[in-house]
Formats: sequence, C-alpha cells, structure tokens
Amino acid sequence: MIAVLAGGVGAARFLEGLVQVVPPETIVAIVNTGDDMAFHGLHVSPDIDIVMYTLAGIVDPSQGWGIRDDTTYALSMLATLGADTWFKLGDQDLAVHIRRTELLRAGWTLSQVTDAFRRALNVGVRLLPMSDDPVATEIATPAGWLHFQQYLVQRRARDEALGIRFVGVEQARPAPGVLEALRAAEVIVIAPSNPVVSIGTILAVPGVRDAIMASSAPVVAVSPIIAGAPVKGPAAPLMRAVGLEVSVRGVAACYCGLIDVLVIDRADADLADDVRASGAEVTVTETIMRGPAEKRRLAEATLAAARTAVRRRAYQRVSQEG
Amino acid sequence: MIAVLAGGVGAARFLEGLVQVVPPETIVAIVNTGDDMAFHGLHVSPDIDIVMYTLAGIVDPSQGWGIRDDTTYALSMLATLGADTWFKLGDQDLAVHIRRTELLRAGWTLSQVTDAFRRALNVGVRLLPMSDDPVATEIATPAGWLHFQQYLVQRRARDEALGIRFVGVEQARPAPGVLEALRAAEVIVIAPSNPVVSIGTILAVPGVRDAIMASSAPVVAVSPIIAGAPVKGPAAPLMRAVGLEVSVRGVAACYCGLIDVLVIDRADADLADDVRASGAEVTVTETIMRGPAEKRRLAEATLAAARTAVRRRAYQRVSQEG
Repeated sequence: MIAVLAGGVGAARFLEGLVQVVPPETIVAIVNTGDDMAFHGLHVSPDIDIVMYTLAGIVDPSQGWGIRDDTTYALSMLATLGADTWFKLGDQDLAVHIRRTELLRAGWTLSQVTDAFRRALNVGVRLLPMSDDPVATEIATPAGWLHFQQYLVQRRARDEALGIRFVGVEQARPAPGVLEALRAAEVIVIAPSNPVVSIGTILAVPGVRDAIMASSAPVVAVSPIIAGAPVKGPAAPLMRAVGLEVSVRGVAACYCGLIDVLVIDRADADLADDVRASGAEVTVTETIMRGPAEKRRLAEATLAAARTAVRRRAYQRVSQEG
Repeated sequence: MIAVLAGGVGAARFLEGLVQVVPPETIVAIVNTGDDMAFHGLHVSPDIDIVMYTLAGIVDPSQGWGIRDDTTYALSMLATLGADTWFKLGDQDLAVHIRRTELLRAGWTLSQVTDAFRRALNVGVRLLPMSDDPVATEIATPAGWLHFQQYLVQRRARDEALGIRFVGVEQARPAPGVLEALRAAEVIVIAPSNPVVSIGTILAVPGVRDAIMASSAPVVAVSPIIAGAPVKGPAAPLMRAVGLEVSVRGVAACYCGLIDVLVIDRADADLADDVRASGAEVTVTETIMRGPAEKRRLAEATLAAARTAVRRRAYQRVSQEG
C-alpha cells in the first residue's frame, strides 16, 4: 500500500502516473483541505476535487482544475443576482459542491462524502481529506490575513506574502484512516505539491508528522520546484514568506528529517549534493509531467527511489547491528 | 395600486397581460409559497420563480416554468453523485436557489431575497411571498400525506387526492407588505391559479382573508377552470378532494363571499347564472391566454369588471343610504 500526501494539480498529475504503475486500490491519497472555502454557501474542497476529477478523467486538462468543457451558466446567473463570482465554478463542478454541502448538513463527514463521490466517479484510489475538521490556510499580507483562496484567486497572489497560518489546525484531528494509512503504508510519497501550504498543512495536523516519522516505510518526496521555480502555483512567494529558498534546497530544508529521498529534476542535478547534505538521498530524473508516459516514468522513478531507500535502511540497520 | 393573488403559471401569464395595461410599479403580486421545498439542500420557491422569470422575460415559454434554454449539466452531475433528481432544475435556475439559500442562511427573509432578485432581473412588479414563514402544502393520498411537489412532480398526480392541508399555516404571518397592499389596493385580483392549493394557501395565511374582506376595493377573480377543466395543472383532482365541482361553479363556490366578480370563459357562458347565484357578478370573455394580445385583453376585461364592480358597490351604498 502506498500513501501519498497530496495538494492539488501537481499531486493529481503525479497520481495519474502512479495508477499506471500500481493498482489504484493500493493507493491512499491524503489530501490537503486547508484551501477549503465556502462559496455561495457551498462547501468547496479544491484539492480534493482536483485530485478526484483528475483521477476520474474529467478534469479540465488546460487548467488542471475544474471539469472539462464545464459551462458556467449558473455562475453567470449568480453574478446577475449580485453574488461575488471571482472563484470560477462550472455547472457540473457546482453540483459537486451542492451535493457535498447537502450531505455535510445532513451530518455526513467530509471523509464520508469524499469516499461516496470518488466511488460514484469510479476513482479507484482512496481519497482521504487530511481532516474532517475545518482548517483554513491564511496568508499574512500588508492588507491583513487573507484566506488562501482570496490571496491566490481573488487577488492573484499580488499581495506580498509575509507569513502563513493554518487556522483551526491545533484542534483538527486526522480524518479516519489517515494515521492508519501512514502506519500501514509500504511507501509514503510526498507529491510534488506546494511544500508550505499544501503539504505543510497536512503535516500540521496533529499526529500526521509523528505517524510519518514513526513509520518504517521509506518516505520519498518529489520536488515541486524545478530550476528555482514551481511548475504551477504560488509556491515561490509562500516559500520565501517562511524563509525557504525557492529551490530543491528549500524543499529539502522544508522536509528535513522527514524524508528519505528527494526526487529532483535533471535541471537541478548540480544541487544534488546540497540536498544530500540535508540528510536525504537524491534521485535525479525528469520531473515535468507533460503526458501520460512522463507521469508514469516519474511514478516509476519515485517507487524505484523508495525501493533503494528500503534497501539502504535495511543495510544500515544490519550494519549498525553488525 | 392593484394587488394580485398569484400561484404559478396561470398567474404569471395573467400578470404578463396586466403589465401591458398598467405600469408594473403599480402592481403587487402576493405569491403562494406553500409549494416551496428544499431540493439538494437548496430553497426552491416554484411559484415565486415562475412569476419572476415570466415577468423578467426569461421563462421557458413551452413549460411555463424554469428558464428558457436552460441547461441541466449540474443536475446530471447531481444524479451521478446519487442525488434524487426528479425535480428538474436547470443550471441558471439552480443559481437562483443557491443564492436564495445562501441569503436565507445569512438571515435575510424570503421577502428581502425575493425583492432583491426581482430588481436584479428588472421586474417592475413588486413580488411578495405570502409569508416569510414556512408553509407546506400537503396532499392526503392512499400512500399517506405527500408534499405538493412530490404529489405533482415526483408521482405525477397519479395518487388519489383525498384531502389537503397547509402545514405551518396557523403560525405563518403574512409577509411584510401583504396586508398593507391588500388594504391600499384599488383593485384586488385573484389570478387564474389553482383555487385550492395556490390561492387557497394564500387565503389560509391568518389575516389575508380578513384583509380582503375588509377592503373596499373590488375583488375580481379570473377562473382557472374552462369548460370543466383547468388550463394547466392538477386543479381537477384537488378541487374534487375538497368537494368542489371542477367548473366555474366550483370556483365561484370556493370564493363565495370573497369576490365581487368572477371572470369566466365564453365556453362557460351557460353557467353564468349559476355563478351569479353564488353572489358574484360575472364577466364573460376569452380567458385562454395564448399570446401577448390575449393576455392584454384578459387584463383589460378584468380591470373593466373591477370598474363595474366599483360602480355597482357605490350605487348600492347610495341606494341603501337613500
């Protein structure tokens, strides 16, 4: 069984590769919910939906989020009725949020809703929200604290990011199955997601980091930073906001002590020794995932790195005992 | 000022004629909300929406409800996710329910929401829900009590209708403006709507019937029954369920003591004397509203009947005094 810590687009694409390499039923994705927000009174879980739509084969491939060929008739009417519509929600996408909200109000947990939805959409990978309790990622800016979606989507990451907080995370419990999956995992993968506001949020849920640290499984992270920049999203200013260099060195520093291997792109091969200095092994490969074949190869390289790490650990244990 | 008691499609078409004859701003429609129901956790107000969409010029003309050329992408996804989708809701239509629900949850009243929406859709007629308090029209059937929408839409009015009740109506207060409109009205019109479950529901709200009875304005009803059958909808079995004949005689009996004039179709001219025997005057005209001209003519005939009733009352008052 493979447990994958997942944010949005990068994680979804990585998982598209992984399901080509191992049976989807053997994968558990533990997904960030710090970006969740209510729009029009509806509960939107952006990262869960990105991963779910992607694995269901219905994601909008150009955006990486939302549903392919989705229309926005409802959103236009919402605007006519005076609603703020800066967060783009297609008609089919809205249905997901309508149904999720209805079920949550009826007493379902986010885990239960998510599991029902991924089954309805024929997604074999188990999708677990990091927590069923509300957590809100907020960014400190000169304009004050902004919800992550406001910072990223409404204001297009134009505000200077001064800091990050995860409101509610101290009280948040890992969703049912999260700690169990981390304990049972033969491999733990940290997907190429924003280390600060996607993976960082998951790791901030009490118990998650400890479960990873206590696991005997190899922990492999795939760097979302290539040649000093993220493939997608606001990782650069947010890494800087918490004092991390926007590079594979910064990623390695962020995961220092937690991971066994960092998978980095060939473009960053010259930084491999710096990463090793942080205590992680390094796998250098192609990490840009343009098509299915590249996704599969990255998944294979990641699992190969995990196998090496297993051997290394076993060797170390033997050598220490011997 | 003209106050119009309104159900759904028949009332909406009548109002389309009335706005051709008098300025829309001088019309207040008091609309049935007994058919309101939650679908997918969203507050749907079918009669308010039918009237609003019709007056906004966006109604689906073939159905008489819903929005013209509306798509159903969200509904398809709701079905995929396991929701019951027997109540057809288009994408633009859903937006209205999403926004209504959001505002109601934020503490707005249904009156406030309705007024904001009709203004956003450039509807000059004031639209008042009969009440801001919940009232549910239910039909007794051999299968038990069914919400009106279940009876009509889900089960297609196939169950034998044994009785009718308006759950919550005793506690319902007329919405702000309803009694004021009835008191201030120069003419009160009962639109050609179901007398039992559209108009009957409005009249059951405590204070409404008394306000009409106490008004010095002429009260003119337009029969929704033509030649022994309703133009649209389940009036026949529901009238029978409460012991009313499905005819203009039954309509007159239902409004006995309340109205001054009943406007009936030429097809029912032979029953005019029977209607007069119930105490109402009769205007015979074309009441089927196929196009704009017919709608306008029916509105003109209705207002002419009101003027006659005004003169008659004035004459009676003088003659009684003399």
